Amino acid sequence: MTHSPIAAPYLIYLGDTPMAELAKTGAGLAYWRPERCLAQLREAGCAADLGLADMTVAQAAAAGAKTMVIGTAAPGGQLPQNWVARVVEAMEAGLDIASGLHVPLRSIPELAAAADRTGRLLHDVRLNPGPFPIANGLPRSGRRVLMVGTDCAVGKKYSALAIHRELAARGVPATFRATGQTGVLIDGHGFAIDAIVSDFLAGAVEMLTPAAAADHWDVVEGQGALIHPAYAGVSLGLLHGAQPEAFVVCHEAGRTELSGFPGHKTGTIAEIIELTTLLSRRVAPGIRCAGICINTVRLPETEARKVLAEAEAAHGLPATDPLRFGVTGLVDRLLGADGAGR
Amino acid sequence: MTHSPIAAPYLIYLGDTPMAELAKTGAGLAYWRPERCLAQLREAGCAADLGLADMTVAQAAAAGAKTMVIGTAAPGGQLPQNWVARVVEAMEAGLDIASGLHVPLRSIPELAAAADRTGRLLHDVRLNPGPFPIANGLPRSGRRVLMVGTDCAVGKKYSALAIHRELAARGVPATFRATGQTGVLIDGHGFAIDAIVSDFLAGAVEMLTPAAAADHWDVVEGQGALIHPAYAGVSLGLLHGAQPEAFVVCHEAGRTELSGFPGHKTGTIAEIIELTTLLSRRVAPGIRCAGICINTVRLPETEARKVLAEAEAAHGLPATDPLRFGVTGLVDRLLGADGAGR
Repeated sequence: MTHSPIAAPYLIYLGDTPMAELAKTGAGLAYWRPERCLAQLREAGCAADLGLADMTVAQAAAAGAKTMVIGTAAPGGQLPQNWVARVVEAMEAGLDIASGLHVPLRSIPELAAAADRTGRLLHDVRLNPGPFPIANGLPRSGRRVLMVGTDCAVGKKYSALAIHRELAARGVPATFRATGQTGVLIDGHGFAIDAIVSDFLAGAVEMLTPAAAADHWDVVEGQGALIHPAYAGVSLGLLHGAQPEAFVVCHEAGRTELSGFPGHKTGTIAEIIELTTLLSRRVAPGIRCAGICINTVRLPETEARKVLAEAEAAHGLPATDPLRFGVTGLVDRLLGADGAGR
Repeated sequence: MTHSPIAAPYLIYLGDTPMAELAKTGAGLAYWRPERCLAQLREAGCAADLGLADMTVAQAAAAGAKTMVIGTAAPGGQLPQNWVARVVEAMEAGLDIASGLHVPLRSIPELAAAADRTGRLLHDVRLNPGPFPIANGLPRSGRRVLMVGTDCAVGKKYSALAIHRELAARGVPATFRATGQTGVLIDGHGFAIDAIVSDFLAGAVEMLTPAAAADHWDVVEGQGALIHPAYAGVSLGLLHGAQPEAFVVCHEAGRTELSGFPGHKTGTIAEIIELTTLLSRRVAPGIRCAGICINTVRLPETEARKVLAEAEAAHGLPATDPLRFGVTGLVDRLLGADGAGR
């Protein structure tokens, strides 16, 4: 079935996670959707801290929490056995549960039984959702911008969230459209499109980014890369389904090899612009590149600014690290407000 | 689970199908794999005839049939209720059942019960198979040729089967690789790749077309079209996974609009050659077009020959209707035996 929206506010469960960096999902939630995050729940020995109020299940339920989100990844994508009782307690207290772990919550007998007993929802955002229609490819109203990448995990999700936040701050009507599991957990809506059956991928994206008011922007999270040997099909289905009028190329400074794919080079920014434009000519013939987002987290600031200036000069487009330097110039270009036209 | 091979020989079940043209799957089986087809079984009123011996279930079982294949499509993709008893009878007689219908055989209670009771296999080739690995995109041995299309349903499967047959007739080691449900039923192996979860599509195709002897050809059935608004992602995942050294463009003479997608033009042959070459440069950098297959069934012979001559002149490639004029010249070009080099 198509996923139900995940009800907010959230109690973010961090368990006894031994490494703070495993709590990326929780950290993304607290950073991008603070208004959806009521509290965190940490067990003894937990190394992560999202800076939220610490609450027990009972306290969170009393304060109005609607869903407990598993905010950490565990090695192997499993739910540690010593977390199960706490998840059951949350359901007994009236909370739904949301998870991006590999293991489906319903496959854990104690959780399935508790869900049946309490009537609470188990949101497994990695599970194959549906049913979805076949794409029709017909033009539709509204404005859409898609993140595209030179690889996986280069910052497409955070770029989209930053652009969405900037549009909202300017009063431009806009919606973030999550296409990956973490994005779905952060936003409470969307699909993990890599879990969708191939035949329905573009159709699912059409459903995710429907016809809208003429001035409304969908800011669509990207997936994979058009040059990726494993995921290019996903990226192309997403591009065709999203039918965007604009795209933003996302890259990580210094990455030269596809993450986890030794021997394969990352795409170049120029190559991704070329392929995205070429492959859009049927469904989004006027498509244009609105800018470049480069993740410079590993570089000192001087070096980061140099990399961005070089990219601006090379491509004639705004280039920024959205988390470090914001997206003002890029959104100006997206909206045609910088005098560069469309 | 990954589909088991479908055991031959087959008893092809045609039921009481009221229209001969609904028996396309059975007709394809009888034409391309006569050695796998033992007999047909027709009920009173059946309008189809594949030219095979007519046998009862008992006769076919006694003669060594291993699988009863549902050889016709019914409107809506259902199994007519009055066919169910015959399918059960076949299982009782020791035959597996194979189907490309939309309805899963196991969802029909009488068939599920009979399968459990008899231990026979129910092959539902439309069901989502797996698990499959993520693609690695690494070079692998063996030779591979992929059919690519200007649209769906232009003759990619029959072109691949014709090329495979021609290679086999010349003593060239070759395997047909089915990627669609009818191809899987015809050959007994393969996957309906459009039913595979997007993340694993290219990996499934790598598994389907594994490393092989240096002189062995995999002749890979194509799917969709790189310009198709609904299926381009499937086509790209297939291209990347197959990592072919050569491709053949398949087209239907006179078709100008994508089948079932009003308002969308078919790809041109030149456009499909351009996109296929461009999108292969990472995983199959030496890829070349070996020829063009044009379905001319709606044209008189003089007109068909004119269309093919024009395509040859326009693209500098062998062009043929594989069912009407054979694939001799095309396979000469594929093998580099026509003096045109590689």
